[in-house]
Amino acid sequence: MAIRIGILGYGNLAKGVELSIRQNKDMELAAIFTRRDPATVKPLTSGVSVASTADIKDYQDKIDVLVICGGSATDLPQQTPEYAAMFNVIDSFDTHAKIPEHFANVDKAAMASGHTSLISAGWDPGMFSLNRLYGSCILPEGKDYTFWGKGVSQGHSDAIRRVPGVKNGKQYTIPVESALEAVRSGSEPELTTRQKHTRECFVVAEEGADLALIEKTIKEMPNYFADYDTTVHFISEEEFARDHSRINHGGFVFRTGKTGVNGENTHVIEYSLKLDSNPEFTGSVLTAYARAIYRLSQKSDFGCKTVFDVAPALLSPLSGEELRAHML
Amino acid sequence: MAIRIGILGYGNLAKGVELSIRQNKDMELAAIFTRRDPATVKPLTSGVSVASTADIKDYQDKIDVLVICGGSATDLPQQTPEYAAMFNVIDSFDTHAKIPEHFANVDKAAMASGHTSLISAGWDPGMFSLNRLYGSCILPEGKDYTFWGKGVSQGHSDAIRRVPGVKNGKQYTIPVESALEAVRSGSEPELTTRQKHTRECFVVAEEGADLALIEKTIKEMPNYFADYDTTVHFISEEEFARDHSRINHGGFVFRTGKTGVNGENTHVIEYSLKLDSNPEFTGSVLTAYARAIYRLSQKSDFGCKTVFDVAPALLSPLSGEELRAHML
Repeated sequence: MAIRIGILGYGNLAKGVELSIRQNKDMELAAIFTRRDPATVKPLTSGVSVASTADIKDYQDKIDVLVICGGSATDLPQQTPEYAAMFNVIDSFDTHAKIPEHFANVDKAAMASGHTSLISAGWDPGMFSLNRLYGSCILPEGKDYTFWGKGVSQGHSDAIRRVPGVKNGKQYTIPVESALEAVRSGSEPELTTRQKHTRECFVVAEEGADLALIEKTIKEMPNYFADYDTTVHFISEEEFARDHSRINHGGFVFRTGKTGVNGENTHVIEYSLKLDSNPEFTGSVLTAYARAIYRLSQKSDFGCKTVFDVAPALLSPLSGEELRAHML
Repeated sequence: MAIRIGILGYGNLAKGVELSIRQNKDMELAAIFTRRDPATVKPLTSGVSVASTADIKDYQDKIDVLVICGGSATDLPQQTPEYAAMFNVIDSFDTHAKIPEHFANVDKAAMASGHTSLISAGWDPGMFSLNRLYGSCILPEGKDYTFWGKGVSQGHSDAIRRVPGVKNGKQYTIPVESALEAVRSGSEPELTTRQKHTRECFVVAEEGADLALIEKTIKEMPNYFADYDTTVHFISEEEFARDHSRINHGGFVFRTGKTGVNGENTHVIEYSLKLDSNPEFTGSVLTAYARAIYRLSQKSDFGCKTVFDVAPALLSPLSGEELRAHML
């Protein structure tokens, strides 16, 4: 029998999960839940039922894992613990500083109700975290480096759009090539924020707006831009629609370290992602971990997990025998 | 109390494990076991006892995990099952085709005696296998590619040295840059053996040897060289000693795949290693997995495992709380 997946929410990430389920033959999309009027949601997959979150508890026997696709700022801190009491759940909570608190809340709800949940799946946190962990365990005497991009930062794009006179805007985070090369050499450089990334902004200004003032406001914005070398390009609405509609992203995780009698040997581990669609890739990671969560729940391994707690074999539809014969 | 590690064998890999234990504060090297006269073995670490494998069963209460550093051709198929009946053990068995059989033998011995063992740790099999597995689970509709090098192939170097008239020789496996770029583009090319790697040989010939014949013999050697573009350089013994004494290696694992309504989005996952010392890096992986094996045995999770079965958190000396707070 297929693993029955429910999706909560229907934004870009939810659609990424929906599309990913189609690629996994042992899974089926059982229902999409929305806070809106269900009649207004048109799934990409024909025949999928859309229900109101108000009725979600009626689905406890019909869903094996609920993938919660809300935002980290306000949705997930409330939703994940709430639904962890009713379902096996998974989310992509990405506010790094609040992970311990979120973990504790979800763990409590999941343990009390006998469910399995997993928080902070995706690529960072997620696959990047795994690479930081594996790297630090293999090369304890070393350093790790994470670079993001080239890709769209949603938070920084939002910040641009709040500047007076800006009609539309998008921000790309770009790793500095010379910094990547310095890390790749194994020289373990100390890098400042400014040395690691640049920020490139594409802005559609309102008619008659003061472009020089917009540029200055963006470049001097504390936290978001002041610590970076930032470039601002003013473009037309047509150019914006044509060239900047994708949600691509990616990045690099390095671990470099030394071994030997006197640390004479250097090793460089590099992991990188180049993603045409951030939400579709993140959705694909969530789907793979949903399989693992279902299996852990079948073994009564309840409570909250992270990617660190999941044995890799649990992500695969293949058996242990098949994995050892063909992938080891 | 520190995790007490025993090392069986004292070649390059064993020395790599020994050096790695120094970097892990929660571990100690309890003893080295050798089939030679123990008096002839001089460990890099002062104060470490060297014992004969003939006496190894007297150490069952003194060793938490035994790291078996024999060769895959004849040592490990015999040693790992034998010692899995007495100790928690780990090896780096790398004959891919014989992994299922080796796994079954080790699992039987470990299960019967209530021990935990892990086979085929290292980088390939090992970290590369993990990246093939993670990649295929996240992007089910895609392709994976493994490239090796630039690095020294022991098997091919041995093959060169068996050619009549060859005094010494070393072979480097080199990934073809244009093939790497084609894969990196996400175009999912079909690549022949010849298109993926070239082979470069450095040969010290015996005085008066027929160099043209040596070159021809190497280049036409079936299985080893015939399917590759091979270059042969004749050098002096001095050059050989000066430029070719390192045991560096490395390689790349890619997974590329498509997502979207019509597969319109391409994603590229790339993992690469650049290693100054193959045995020291492999030894470092074995040490990290020895920690995991010890922990699994403490939870009475017996039998044979591979890297696929080990939750990443078990590799780290840090607690779950610390990992979530600092590495997720």
